Amino acid sequence: MLDFKYMVSTKIFFGRNSIEYLGEELKRYGTRILFVYGQGSIKKTGLYDSVTDIFMKNNIIFHELSGVQPNPRISHVRQGIKLCREHDIECIVAVGGGSVIDSAKTIAAGFYHDGDPWDLFVIGDSSIKKALPLGTILTFAGTGSEMNGNAVITNEETVEKLAIHHDALRPRFSILDPTYTFSVPKNQTAAGTVDIFSHILEQYFSPTTDAFVQNRMAESLLKTCIEYGPLVLAEPANYEARAQLMWTSSLALNGILGYGRLSDWATHGIEHAVSAVYDVTHGVGLAILTPYWMQYVFDEETKGKFVEYARNVWGIKGTNEDVVAKKGMEKTREFFSCLGMPKTLREVGIKENALESMAVKTVLHGAVGKFKKLEKHDVLTILKNAF
Amino acid sequence: MLDFKYMVSTKIFFGRNSIEYLGEELKRYGTRILFVYGQGSIKKTGLYDSVTDIFMKNNIIFHELSGVQPNPRISHVRQGIKLCREHDIECIVAVGGGSVIDSAKTIAAGFYHDGDPWDLFVIGDSSIKKALPLGTILTFAGTGSEMNGNAVITNEETVEKLAIHHDALRPRFSILDPTYTFSVPKNQTAAGTVDIFSHILEQYFSPTTDAFVQNRMAESLLKTCIEYGPLVLAEPANYEARAQLMWTSSLALNGILGYGRLSDWATHGIEHAVSAVYDVTHGVGLAILTPYWMQYVFDEETKGKFVEYARNVWGIKGTNEDVVAKKGMEKTREFFSCLGMPKTLREVGIKENALESMAVKTVLHGAVGKFKKLEKHDVLTILKNAF
Repeated sequence: MLDFKYMVSTKIFFGRNSIEYLGEELKRYGTRILFVYGQGSIKKTGLYDSVTDIFMKNNIIFHELSGVQPNPRISHVRQGIKLCREHDIECIVAVGGGSVIDSAKTIAAGFYHDGDPWDLFVIGDSSIKKALPLGTILTFAGTGSEMNGNAVITNEETVEKLAIHHDALRPRFSILDPTYTFSVPKNQTAAGTVDIFSHILEQYFSPTTDAFVQNRMAESLLKTCIEYGPLVLAEPANYEARAQLMWTSSLALNGILGYGRLSDWATHGIEHAVSAVYDVTHGVGLAILTPYWMQYVFDEETKGKFVEYARNVWGIKGTNEDVVAKKGMEKTREFFSCLGMPKTLREVGIKENALESMAVKTVLHGAVGKFKKLEKHDVLTILKNAF
Repeated sequence: MLDFKYMVSTKIFFGRNSIEYLGEELKRYGTRILFVYGQGSIKKTGLYDSVTDIFMKNNIIFHELSGVQPNPRISHVRQGIKLCREHDIECIVAVGGGSVIDSAKTIAAGFYHDGDPWDLFVIGDSSIKKALPLGTILTFAGTGSEMNGNAVITNEETVEKLAIHHDALRPRFSILDPTYTFSVPKNQTAAGTVDIFSHILEQYFSPTTDAFVQNRMAESLLKTCIEYGPLVLAEPANYEARAQLMWTSSLALNGILGYGRLSDWATHGIEHAVSAVYDVTHGVGLAILTPYWMQYVFDEETKGKFVEYARNVWGIKGTNEDVVAKKGMEKTREFFSCLGMPKTLREVGIKENALESMAVKTVLHGAVGKFKKLEKHDVLTILKNAF
């Protein structure tokens, strides 16, 4: 086990009607709030009204920043920072999924940064010192952003999608009511499940061989996705299935699987390059790329990890390690397939002549992957195979 | 999944030399410190010198409370509170295992309580409003006290052993350096491993049937104990084995397995009654009682859980559920045995005529157990079987 510092400070209110804690929590941070949300689906579901009612009952002055898009943009973040400064905002409330929360986090950190907020992504994590307090109300299970200090933002001018991480970005509290995800459409629910699954795999496929408890925990979360992913597609209002996936999304990326070992993150790196250019749904991109990443990095040296995965997650029997490992990969492919995911980049409208620039973009800040280090030519081969 | 509020606020510094963070962390809380430790083994290992050096380098004024005993006493806690008040203490540093940390927690809460600190245990958790900040340096893996808000204290006058729980009691930070556990004697290491295993079982054997992710995570931690428990006895200075058990001890009882479901805790309840009277090592008491608890609560209604346990934790095959379940119980018994644990209360010097009063004591504040509710006569039967 590698040395680590653990801090998972986000308070979680989990369950039906957990929104009732919102007023009490907000009082800790102030009365002037920026209310960030997306494309307005919360108005249809009634969540917008519930939240604003609580604001009003608690004498909270709120300013709205709506219109956060999937693959959220730095230009929109800039608007949010402007609003915070104009109205002397004390706290941010983000209601939505990962895009909304990531935007809110970047606004929270950007508020204290003198230059342009994109600097934070270019200079990196060390440029973050402080952030406005953030509370979230989650409406989508997948990104895990509700319980960690990560944010991923797209710069539409430079066509880049970059990530930052800082403990100051961890939400102070998150309200997780699984009923808010009942209305998430099937394809998005499936993409969210793939995202969770991929977050776990990125940490599971680690070069740190001494990580027994972390590996076993990762397997438990993978099994939860396998158990409830198909069920939630068949029964969108199944509370237990939604609850299991929602909590698993938070656990998958709050750090608990990653502390004490190195993680890979190559597939996420490649996918970010793809979706920076093509606006592909993140989970869909991951579903396409993951099996090709597996196939590419599989060799004599990495075989053991694939065997462990096949046996412990998928229950594959047999003594021929090559066969076992490959069956595990096949099961992964089938799992994504049963969630209705496409199998190739071509199917989502990507053109072959874009692959080269995606490969360049992936390794712009250096090779990716800790389980297996990937240079540009490796990434390009994976993209070509996935095409 | 049941509704829950999650808060695991303790910061962890894990790894070799993580004590280097002590000075920096203490500065957040003040310069007048109560330094709590046990029977002086930290003087032999050199840890006492390391800690006091850091105090001195950071201009920290410290007062010592040494001599915390296993099954720590309320009378000693009272001395600690007196010291804190006399010296206007701002923060407590506990160096040791669960007994030391539990004493420090009770001092921390008792400092703000006007009456006798035993009131906190009699009145219960609602009597706690506030506590002095606490930092811990762990030298023993087992109790999980380093990352939770629980404390268990014995009142030697009333011959009671009671527990309190409050989020204010969670250590602000804990330093987990596995090398500090290298010198823990074999029998204590084994007892610690049983304690970890039992904490997991108490939450795994839950009446909440919808707890998939919690069950799978519990199984991963149980497997870690099974993997590393025997290894650490064979190789006391095996860093990885010590590290895996140390981190598992924290994860087993920081709440992550329990959130979203009910837990049982009957075996702990019975063991506390036993060790309040006989000063048996907690883990030894648990090792004796757990198999008899299993045997007693096993019936048609609970069989499913035992089958799940046998299959997922011990890999027992077969379709006859009774056979599978019983093999799981047998494996549990064998595991404790291979750790050198005794099998009966008689072996640890307990007299048969004490069993009745232990049973009375166990249910003093009501029936115990959520997986299976146990009244006095149930507890007495388990104790008699275990005799």
